[in-house]
Amino acid sequence: MVVAGIMTGTSVDAIDVAVCLITHEGDRHSVSLISFESSPFSEASRDAIVQALAGNASMELLSDLPFHLAHDYAAAIRSVQREHSIELVAIHGQTLWHHPPISTWQATSGSALSALISLPVVHDFRSADVALGGQGAPLVPIYDHATLVSDAIDSVALNIGGMANITILRSGASLQDVRAFDTGPGNVWIDTSIRTTFGKRFDTDGHVGRAGRIIEPMLAECMSMPYFNADPPKSTGRELFSEKEARRLITKYSHPSGPLEDVITTMTELTAWSISDHVARYAPQTRCVVVSGGGSQNSFLLERLQHHLHSIGVSTEVHVHQHWNSKEAMAFAYLGWLTIRGLAGNVPQVTGASRAVVLGSVSRT
Amino acid sequence: MVVAGIMTGTSVDAIDVAVCLITHEGDRHSVSLISFESSPFSEASRDAIVQALAGNASMELLSDLPFHLAHDYAAAIRSVQREHSIELVAIHGQTLWHHPPISTWQATSGSALSALISLPVVHDFRSADVALGGQGAPLVPIYDHATLVSDAIDSVALNIGGMANITILRSGASLQDVRAFDTGPGNVWIDTSIRTTFGKRFDTDGHVGRAGRIIEPMLAECMSMPYFNADPPKSTGRELFSEKEARRLITKYSHPSGPLEDVITTMTELTAWSISDHVARYAPQTRCVVVSGGGSQNSFLLERLQHHLHSIGVSTEVHVHQHWNSKEAMAFAYLGWLTIRGLAGNVPQVTGASRAVVLGSVSRT
Repeated sequence: MVVAGIMTGTSVDAIDVAVCLITHEGDRHSVSLISFESSPFSEASRDAIVQALAGNASMELLSDLPFHLAHDYAAAIRSVQREHSIELVAIHGQTLWHHPPISTWQATSGSALSALISLPVVHDFRSADVALGGQGAPLVPIYDHATLVSDAIDSVALNIGGMANITILRSGASLQDVRAFDTGPGNVWIDTSIRTTFGKRFDTDGHVGRAGRIIEPMLAECMSMPYFNADPPKSTGRELFSEKEARRLITKYSHPSGPLEDVITTMTELTAWSISDHVARYAPQTRCVVVSGGGSQNSFLLERLQHHLHSIGVSTEVHVHQHWNSKEAMAFAYLGWLTIRGLAGNVPQVTGASRAVVLGSVSRT
Repeated sequence: MVVAGIMTGTSVDAIDVAVCLITHEGDRHSVSLISFESSPFSEASRDAIVQALAGNASMELLSDLPFHLAHDYAAAIRSVQREHSIELVAIHGQTLWHHPPISTWQATSGSALSALISLPVVHDFRSADVALGGQGAPLVPIYDHATLVSDAIDSVALNIGGMANITILRSGASLQDVRAFDTGPGNVWIDTSIRTTFGKRFDTDGHVGRAGRIIEPMLAECMSMPYFNADPPKSTGRELFSEKEARRLITKYSHPSGPLEDVITTMTELTAWSISDHVARYAPQTRCVVVSGGGSQNSFLLERLQHHLHSIGVSTEVHVHQHWNSKEAMAFAYLGWLTIRGLAGNVPQVTGASRAVVLGSVSRT
């Protein structure tokens, strides 16, 4: 089945569409990328999302947003449809609020999109898990399991987005054996630091971090944060790894006369250490860590990670997902396919939900 | 198939659940009521709805509302499930904004509800029609057609809610022949008048209206409003038939010394006249008008309607829908059943959509 997965993140930079071929042989599912495209948001959608995320949106704007998005998604699908005969569309939607285990809100209208493109659409993937007491996240582990689990070796899927999270896949693991949790910051504090010091959006390929030296007392204070020592399941976000806390640390430890690069180097080291420390503690038999997300584009971060992981192999996701940025959109294509086949998509021991459940809602107009 | 339809209106007074048996013989569909129950909203839901309708809800409240409603709906379903084995649930959701042809917003989470009750749930019935340029309303005409059309006589389904609308069903009419539109005010100006003058919520069984006399110049001014003379398709609401305009008319025409009942009598007469005038102009062959909605409980209004309709029979809906207040919940049960069977639910010449479309979104956990 050819399934298009559509992912949009909170950075509101692009609509990612991964067209995937999903096949199965018994219980073995295979997901391969046919094409990956990023399309722009319309101005109406972007404005509405920015207002909504800032808590300033009117009821009219909030009502209109899912319809603006449906038109954007329809345009994105039509442009890939010329070359590929898509059979199903799976949309994550735009997260406006995430408040588990009470509620979660991904703005989107599957029904409107389905009407516009005359294809079945699956959407609203997080609500059922939240209704059953789960965190509604992470949902990617079932995709990690389908695409990465091996009969021969223990592996870890690592995603370095704003936060970093790992999915632990022991050799021959069933879904019930899968563990997944946030290890701590991903790019968030590296990005915050370089924005604060150099006014850049991110440390391209780790150039700045590579040029500095670790500020040891700053690293030590960061490493003493209780989150790192807590046992999983656990998850974190910008509430704990906040811009404010990063600024406090930078002010406290960076000398006015010292090189500003050191701050970036230290934050990169914290990220690499916290990921590898969790792998060592909770998945010591790991032979291979497969990295995805924006952090996979920072070669200095990957070097530090490899340093700490010693003999464990670190590889970027390209050979698995075929495009460095396609993983989440591919994961939602797979989740949509599971829904259409009546298969559960959440992993209860990962999300905390009371049971495995078929996710989402299906519109076929 | 046993289908539960759940309807909640903007008055936020109750959650109406109609359990229906839906059967078919070829293209003929039959909907009969098994039970009808009204359950209360939880305080959390009611508070959130009131805040949202007033435009004062936070993002957190708006995110939580569909989940609060899912828990309310689940409780309502569980209480009827003890006696009936429900196979499908169809929920209208709570309308928070209706802004066709741009957007419409019925707060609800079908996916959360389905997870809670382990039954398939259909929801979000209006979005697809709106995405196709329609008004997303009225959606009841297809139900009127299924339940009322006759091979022998021309009939009209009349719903008297806040506004009054008619569905015109000529004998042997196919769906393509069905016309439906708002005739003007239903209870809205009768209710506004009695609230303004007597401080009551509504004119119970028309007692007050029956005690007064028509203020002829007031009636004449009302009848001259351009809406009444406009050709359908047309729809109206509280923007035109506003409380402010009703107060202006009352102040202008009611004598300080005159009986206040006359205002109610006049507004009742306006409602009866405007309905019957539209029937006479657009459905002159009608033999029977079947009345539903709150207005069907006002016997004085029904008398005036019968007066103006001369030999056309006026009957309340009880023999068709089996409960005076069950029609909308039954209609959405039927719409959900159509969706599950892959059948279109909108009537394009009524809503203005560019085509007939399968409505809604289906969650099966």
